[in-house]
Amino acid sequence: MADSAVERLQNAGHEVTLKHYSSSELENGILGRFDAVVVRSATKLTSKVIKSSSGRKGSLKLVGRAGVGIDNIDLKVATKSKVAVCNTPGASTKAVVELTIGHLLASTRHIASGDRTLRSGEWAKKSMRGTELAGKRLGLIGFGRIAQGVAKAARVLGMTLHAYDPYLPAEVAAGQHCILHDDVDELFRLCTHVTIHCNFSPETHHLVNVDRLAMMSGVGRDGVACGNHLVNCARGGIVDEDAVLAALESGQLASAALDVFEHEPPGDHPLLQHTNFHGTPHIGAATIEAQGRIGEEMATLLIDFFDGRHPQSALNPEVL
Amino acid sequence: MADSAVERLQNAGHEVTLKHYSSSELENGILGRFDAVVVRSATKLTSKVIKSSSGRKGSLKLVGRAGVGIDNIDLKVATKSKVAVCNTPGASTKAVVELTIGHLLASTRHIASGDRTLRSGEWAKKSMRGTELAGKRLGLIGFGRIAQGVAKAARVLGMTLHAYDPYLPAEVAAGQHCILHDDVDELFRLCTHVTIHCNFSPETHHLVNVDRLAMMSGVGRDGVACGNHLVNCARGGIVDEDAVLAALESGQLASAALDVFEHEPPGDHPLLQHTNFHGTPHIGAATIEAQGRIGEEMATLLIDFFDGRHPQSALNPEVL
Repeated sequence: MADSAVERLQNAGHEVTLKHYSSSELENGILGRFDAVVVRSATKLTSKVIKSSSGRKGSLKLVGRAGVGIDNIDLKVATKSKVAVCNTPGASTKAVVELTIGHLLASTRHIASGDRTLRSGEWAKKSMRGTELAGKRLGLIGFGRIAQGVAKAARVLGMTLHAYDPYLPAEVAAGQHCILHDDVDELFRLCTHVTIHCNFSPETHHLVNVDRLAMMSGVGRDGVACGNHLVNCARGGIVDEDAVLAALESGQLASAALDVFEHEPPGDHPLLQHTNFHGTPHIGAATIEAQGRIGEEMATLLIDFFDGRHPQSALNPEVL
Repeated sequence: MADSAVERLQNAGHEVTLKHYSSSELENGILGRFDAVVVRSATKLTSKVIKSSSGRKGSLKLVGRAGVGIDNIDLKVATKSKVAVCNTPGASTKAVVELTIGHLLASTRHIASGDRTLRSGEWAKKSMRGTELAGKRLGLIGFGRIAQGVAKAARVLGMTLHAYDPYLPAEVAAGQHCILHDDVDELFRLCTHVTIHCNFSPETHHLVNVDRLAMMSGVGRDGVACGNHLVNCARGGIVDEDAVLAALESGQLASAALDVFEHEPPGDHPLLQHTNFHGTPHIGAATIEAQGRIGEEMATLLIDFFDGRHPQSALNPEVL
């Protein structure tokens, strides 16, 4: 969290402890010493961690997730244990939108491999022919805040928009000039460029797999043989990395760009060495601006909670 | 040129020769055997080349530049020698717009260096904090077709727009929500992000130099210390590469992205090895779509010319 957010909490009379605990400390209930805990994505608040820290007088009442995805928090157990869980859903939107568009353009225009060849002394101009986003169909998996921001920028660049989001009212997509599909397979059949914007859950685990990648046509709406392109700045595990590597090797995917991985860090997965892959180390929300906004939102919701107001972003409002 | 364009010319009754000539062949007037010649940027049509190939019955009458910049063609001598010079100004606009936005986002979000560290087995998440384009001022040097496309995309991402273009009517910029400045220095003082879109000429040689880079404030319109960022997908030589390296070393520039270089290939210039530099090998127009459009436009203007119609994009219409 930004220093300014810590100061705001202290100025509001709260005591703030910045500390890293081991898994065994967490599982032995050390968080029970605090009224509230703020985590990012790396700290796993499992059933055991939550149960051991809550339910007693003076024990844990609030978990704040500084960020969006809560796949590191057992929400069901938190709810049963009467621990409120809140995130900061809007704070990182712009940061992830910009990284997604950046990865999409870096993919279609060989920016990472272009730089790599330049640094090695090679002038690879002739092998670096790319394709344009203009005239192509973008398929967005999930159509929440981030996807809508990506869609807006992609549309200005001349893409047409298709989305799959079973939780979204159809009129939201229509308002963004985006066609909403009931069947995610249809998105892969239609679109040469797919970006991921859904949560990670059992439902979305390996949603991007061998079969769906094989459905992509490689030919844009404008008839250009642009190949197929995949970008994931959402969560690792939604994309089957072995399937992506196989599709890059066969040419079924012309490029793949990942900011998130099934295991982070991903170690020496051979995908990372493929010429047509490029990636970043889970930095979707890692901008000065987003970190500032996350801190502000988090400080506000903690202060609200302890002042007896309901925090707006509670994911289990039934415990409040 | 795309095969389809060559076919169109042949179908219109023209004979097409695809051939590379050495400098000495060019200087000895070999192009005088042709009615028209089509070049890209690498072939230098110097005073000597043009003079030795034109002015006789049946000698060279038309130079087609498949692309935009004509700094490789001596236009004055061509005009004196009654050789028409035409380019394909609109064909590569979208391709360069997309590469410029891609480089801008790759710079602010460490895409090339993020990929480099991933490949080397390092998980450099903590050192990859970036900044957002949203809330910042973009300074566009030159405000022609490409700059206007970049401006449109940058505005949707939340940037405010400033341009310097002494040849542009002020109302064109105003129509694009862009403030036009009379003084290029003002652009560097105001803007944390500068992109280059002018021609290369004695007037723009090293326009981006030590003094101007030193004017940049490093603080965005939103008050965020985003550092200064420079992108050049126009022409090498507009940017003083030694000045850029010094500014990266001192931290005055947070990033620099170049698609074009003063000497191409740039060899082993130490700039290419700086962590906060990334580049591509002059691929601004290198998309399947742009190459197709360039071929179409070029075939049309050659056919028009030999059918006695004036080609629209003649740069010296006085010879027609």
